[in-house]
Amino acid sequence: MVPALAFALVPDSPASARPPARLQVVGIGNALVDVLAPAPDTFIAEHDLAKGAMTLVDLERSAELYEALDGAVEMSGGSAANTVCGISSFGGRAAYIGKVNEDDLGDVFGHDMRAVGVEFARPSGVRTAYPGIPTGRCVIVVTPDAERTMNTYLGVSSFLAPSDLDESVIADSAVLYMEGYLYDRNDAKAAFRRAAEVAHRHERLVSLTLSDSFCVDRHRDDFRALVADEVDLLFGNADELRSLYLTESLDAAIAKVRAECQLAAITVGPDGCVIVTPEAVLEVPAVGVDEVIDTTGAGDLFAAGFLHGLTIGADLGDCGRLGSIAAAEVISHVGPRPLVELRTLKPHG
Amino acid sequence: MVPALAFALVPDSPASARPPARLQVVGIGNALVDVLAPAPDTFIAEHDLAKGAMTLVDLERSAELYEALDGAVEMSGGSAANTVCGISSFGGRAAYIGKVNEDDLGDVFGHDMRAVGVEFARPSGVRTAYPGIPTGRCVIVVTPDAERTMNTYLGVSSFLAPSDLDESVIADSAVLYMEGYLYDRNDAKAAFRRAAEVAHRHERLVSLTLSDSFCVDRHRDDFRALVADEVDLLFGNADELRSLYLTESLDAAIAKVRAECQLAAITVGPDGCVIVTPEAVLEVPAVGVDEVIDTTGAGDLFAAGFLHGLTIGADLGDCGRLGSIAAAEVISHVGPRPLVELRTLKPHG
Repeated sequence: MVPALAFALVPDSPASARPPARLQVVGIGNALVDVLAPAPDTFIAEHDLAKGAMTLVDLERSAELYEALDGAVEMSGGSAANTVCGISSFGGRAAYIGKVNEDDLGDVFGHDMRAVGVEFARPSGVRTAYPGIPTGRCVIVVTPDAERTMNTYLGVSSFLAPSDLDESVIADSAVLYMEGYLYDRNDAKAAFRRAAEVAHRHERLVSLTLSDSFCVDRHRDDFRALVADEVDLLFGNADELRSLYLTESLDAAIAKVRAECQLAAITVGPDGCVIVTPEAVLEVPAVGVDEVIDTTGAGDLFAAGFLHGLTIGADLGDCGRLGSIAAAEVISHVGPRPLVELRTLKPHG
Repeated sequence: MVPALAFALVPDSPASARPPARLQVVGIGNALVDVLAPAPDTFIAEHDLAKGAMTLVDLERSAELYEALDGAVEMSGGSAANTVCGISSFGGRAAYIGKVNEDDLGDVFGHDMRAVGVEFARPSGVRTAYPGIPTGRCVIVVTPDAERTMNTYLGVSSFLAPSDLDESVIADSAVLYMEGYLYDRNDAKAAFRRAAEVAHRHERLVSLTLSDSFCVDRHRDDFRALVADEVDLLFGNADELRSLYLTESLDAAIAKVRAECQLAAITVGPDGCVIVTPEAVLEVPAVGVDEVIDTTGAGDLFAAGFLHGLTIGADLGDCGRLGSIAAAEVISHVGPRPLVELRTLKPHG
């Protein structure tokens, strides 16, 4: 059953007119395997990296950075993919749409989705259609302050096109969740628009994460139009929201998003999150962690907890708390996905 | 300079007759990428695994186990490869000989060797010679007691043949270090014999690790002949040594190895190690760890510390202590290779 709250967020849609959603969330994003390696702060300057940001790189630059790094660990990643894995880890029902190739990293990505119970139909015929274009990978430099600096070679993930969308999965999901990162390629942008159209036709919620303030910077006009026209629920952090509305003031940015979206969940780092509706602004504190090891996946897992709460009918404060619990778990170890089943963590532990 | 002790271990070889070795150790082994996943104890029984052992599996069985496991992490492994990485991490000079294919996992393996400074000439033309036979991988199930149960698909690593040996590297290394696991394939067995012959011709030390008591069980006669005829320095744990000499008594096994090898370093789990020479038996306690997380690589890293000590001229007690320090580091986290530079750890910290 789709809970009342999720229904209520879609305007002009009486619950009776819509069949219950089989899935809580379908994520669409760049399907990537993360390559995580620790490095000193000097590495950032020496290699001219944008610390804390996601930078798109070509295969050669990706290989060059990888070569320069010490012993790395490979684990499945991808922003929206991390989020749907988090929902599954909470015991929720989620699906994922994204493109990998028929190579080792594609195998790893597909395995890790299925392993946590996320529905993922690996696209077929990719090797023939895209010979020599490998599964995407994100080389992540983790500095001693636990900040992650991402260098993404999108590979075949960027060829996600409208024809790759399984519309029945979108129709069957209470919430469509998409990465802002998709906007870095035109094919994916069209897929994004199409998915939103399908979701709304089936009276489902459309949500977006802004992903990265540099990503917002690259696509500000598109994002502004999208948020105003298509997005019911917006995720982002304070920097991204300020960048979206080109303001130094978070309060001013929040005032703007209130006028455009039914719901926004804005993370403010160690201060937790701010949940914004047309009626109210609610602050929820973060969950403390003993030691922050690696912030990779923090925003993705916050969205997981929030969306899981929303789609099981939790109130907005509990949605924020579930987001904070999931984010706290993922920043306390290396890697972008939970190492424990999130359903076992207590909201007030 | 090759230190006096290493020289002294080769009989009838006056130091003056032999040029100094450029490298401390060259390792030869099955080049594998580890796929590590946590699982409950019930997984072991359900999938009929030999807990704590290394079992050879085919590609289908490897895939089946991988599918059944939850979120995994991929990191370079391989027993002798872990050892030479450990030596490099101590600041030593080491090389590796092993076979990977031209695929993603082969890329990962090669990267991680070079990243820590181990000389590794990736074999060329492997994709053409062995089409469709991928880089080997070891699916490792880590149970809550930190024990690792290994399921190895050797892939192209098992095609290591005498022609793959770079004899100049063997001639230039003070110690040749080989895995007992190599004995599971005939080509590799011939490479093993050839490498030992080259090392001895250049008056270098030949060392062997017994690898696994089941491996010893499979090849007992071969190992017995090898230890008696070719091996100057033997590594193993108590189970493996007892299996080699088919005795329940560790003391009896130690008496046997004393008669055959110039030196043996036998690990006895949390009790540390026993160092055996024809003249003496020396016990060295283990280094304590706060929490044992994953014992993958414990024996490999013990050998790294021991060999590093031996080849820089440390006394045998300090060799054992360096081995214990390295083993303690690697069992305190997930993965088979050190996460810190071992040279930064203090022998008496």
